[in-house]
Amino acid sequence: MGLLVVGSVAFDDLETPSGRRENILGGSASYFSLAASRLHPVQVVAVVGDDFGPEQDQVFQGRAIDLSGLIRRPGLSFHWKGEYGQDLNEATTLETHLNVFADFHPDLPASYRSASCLFLGNIDPVLQMDVVRQMTARPRWIALDTMNFWINGAREALLRVLKEVDILLVNEAEARSLTGERNLLKIYEKVQQLGPRFLVVKRGEYGVVLLTPQGHFLAPAFLLREVVDPTGAGDTFAGGFMGFLASAPDSDLETLKRAVLMGTVMASFTVEQFGTAGLESLTDNALHGRLDAMRELIHLSAR
Amino acid sequence: MGLLVVGSVAFDDLETPSGRRENILGGSASYFSLAASRLHPVQVVAVVGDDFGPEQDQVFQGRAIDLSGLIRRPGLSFHWKGEYGQDLNEATTLETHLNVFADFHPDLPASYRSASCLFLGNIDPVLQMDVVRQMTARPRWIALDTMNFWINGAREALLRVLKEVDILLVNEAEARSLTGERNLLKIYEKVQQLGPRFLVVKRGEYGVVLLTPQGHFLAPAFLLREVVDPTGAGDTFAGGFMGFLASAPDSDLETLKRAVLMGTVMASFTVEQFGTAGLESLTDNALHGRLDAMRELIHLSAR
Repeated sequence: MGLLVVGSVAFDDLETPSGRRENILGGSASYFSLAASRLHPVQVVAVVGDDFGPEQDQVFQGRAIDLSGLIRRPGLSFHWKGEYGQDLNEATTLETHLNVFADFHPDLPASYRSASCLFLGNIDPVLQMDVVRQMTARPRWIALDTMNFWINGAREALLRVLKEVDILLVNEAEARSLTGERNLLKIYEKVQQLGPRFLVVKRGEYGVVLLTPQGHFLAPAFLLREVVDPTGAGDTFAGGFMGFLASAPDSDLETLKRAVLMGTVMASFTVEQFGTAGLESLTDNALHGRLDAMRELIHLSAR
Repeated sequence: MGLLVVGSVAFDDLETPSGRRENILGGSASYFSLAASRLHPVQVVAVVGDDFGPEQDQVFQGRAIDLSGLIRRPGLSFHWKGEYGQDLNEATTLETHLNVFADFHPDLPASYRSASCLFLGNIDPVLQMDVVRQMTARPRWIALDTMNFWINGAREALLRVLKEVDILLVNEAEARSLTGERNLLKIYEKVQQLGPRFLVVKRGEYGVVLLTPQGHFLAPAFLLREVVDPTGAGDTFAGGFMGFLASAPDSDLETLKRAVLMGTVMASFTVEQFGTAGLESLTDNALHGRLDAMRELIHLSAR
């Protein structure tokens, strides 16, 4: 049974210190599914406009990505325009056009409703809850991403859906505004009271913190010579992380740690090129080579 | 043979979100020697005024800290006043009074000149070079800390002393202004051209990056529930790191990694209390307990 993702499939205009791109494929569900599908079959729920054509379709072809839940509507797809300064850790949003996304209502195909794992990408928490309610069986893992726009503007709805969630995946600023705490251990205590037993805090170039009832894990980001475009790094991380969990028989701390490393390494390929190019051209050799290199970067020999 | 440190022994006025303290013992050589002396005998070169009395002396007593190179002069000791906001990663300096430090000229006792390891704390690079020249034998390890004040204001002198140095220990902003690069791998290439074969980049709550010709190592900071006062964290790290290297028979990558962990864990005790209190009260049990906990936080089981 598949790994279900609900999120956005979008077009992005990006400017970074390395250059600019217009109208390139983006959106949380795109990055997520390209990463996760290397590890486990993915089912996508999203909406696109009629600007989503064969060129975009083709990016998902030949991969374990089921697009039967991708709604195609007249009009334009979600469009985001953003830029990054020398500090690549944070994007400045210049324009957001919801377009067909404005009245998106996820309606899961029957084959999606028994997915084994569910990733609720960063969309309106009311829609995230809508997806949870359509599941006929409780997925093994439900993970959720969100952002300050929903934390501040749709808090009640967000708190409702969080009660259904196992893993909250957010960046440090989001974790802080959700809980009102600054310290990660205190943040984690508050998050557990809200529902999720697991917390993954994304810190951009400083890596990821995994907090679990069985223990915690601190993983740095992979050391790269060049970061071209950070867009999609968090969604790629989520894809690698959830793809690993969906494909793993176990759910213990060691499995979660390895999922974090997989997400970290996948994200390192995304940021080396604009948009989804790094994920599209990623080979198994490159992926496993970098997983080994990542292990070396954090490895201590036994005492 | 000892581990020689040249740096400041000072009085600090501190304000952090957790409270304020006035006239407490501080200075790079104080933190460094309290940390390092747990692992290896330390020899201190610094200057203090006549405000440095029995109360301060007593902090160093009963430890493997040789103060015969501590010059006592009429007048006041170096005094620093600083504050931290909610973001504890950076201090704002409110006042700096050099006092007797203004005409400090290190003059090493004969017993110091054959020290096996040397740490050049963050002082005028001309004085750092002065210390290097007084050594009768090349120490096994020479490490250097500096700051933007010297990088921008005494660049030539800094570049001269860097040629003698094995390990450069700086924070990320300092590494960037020294080299003009933002990317850590590019920074490391430039640093190697300046002399040091090893680079340790301190990232505050995000940990430490060790770059060596044999490979790199990324260590997170220890997860703490409460950070009370970050003052001295970098100097404590340096003390734990250099103390470990001085006491270790080997100089390989694995030894350097363990030195990084030791420095990281020592620093975690410093930031939990104001000033040197956390280091003064540190027990072997607490140190080893936290070293084990730190290993757990970054540990992956074998493949």
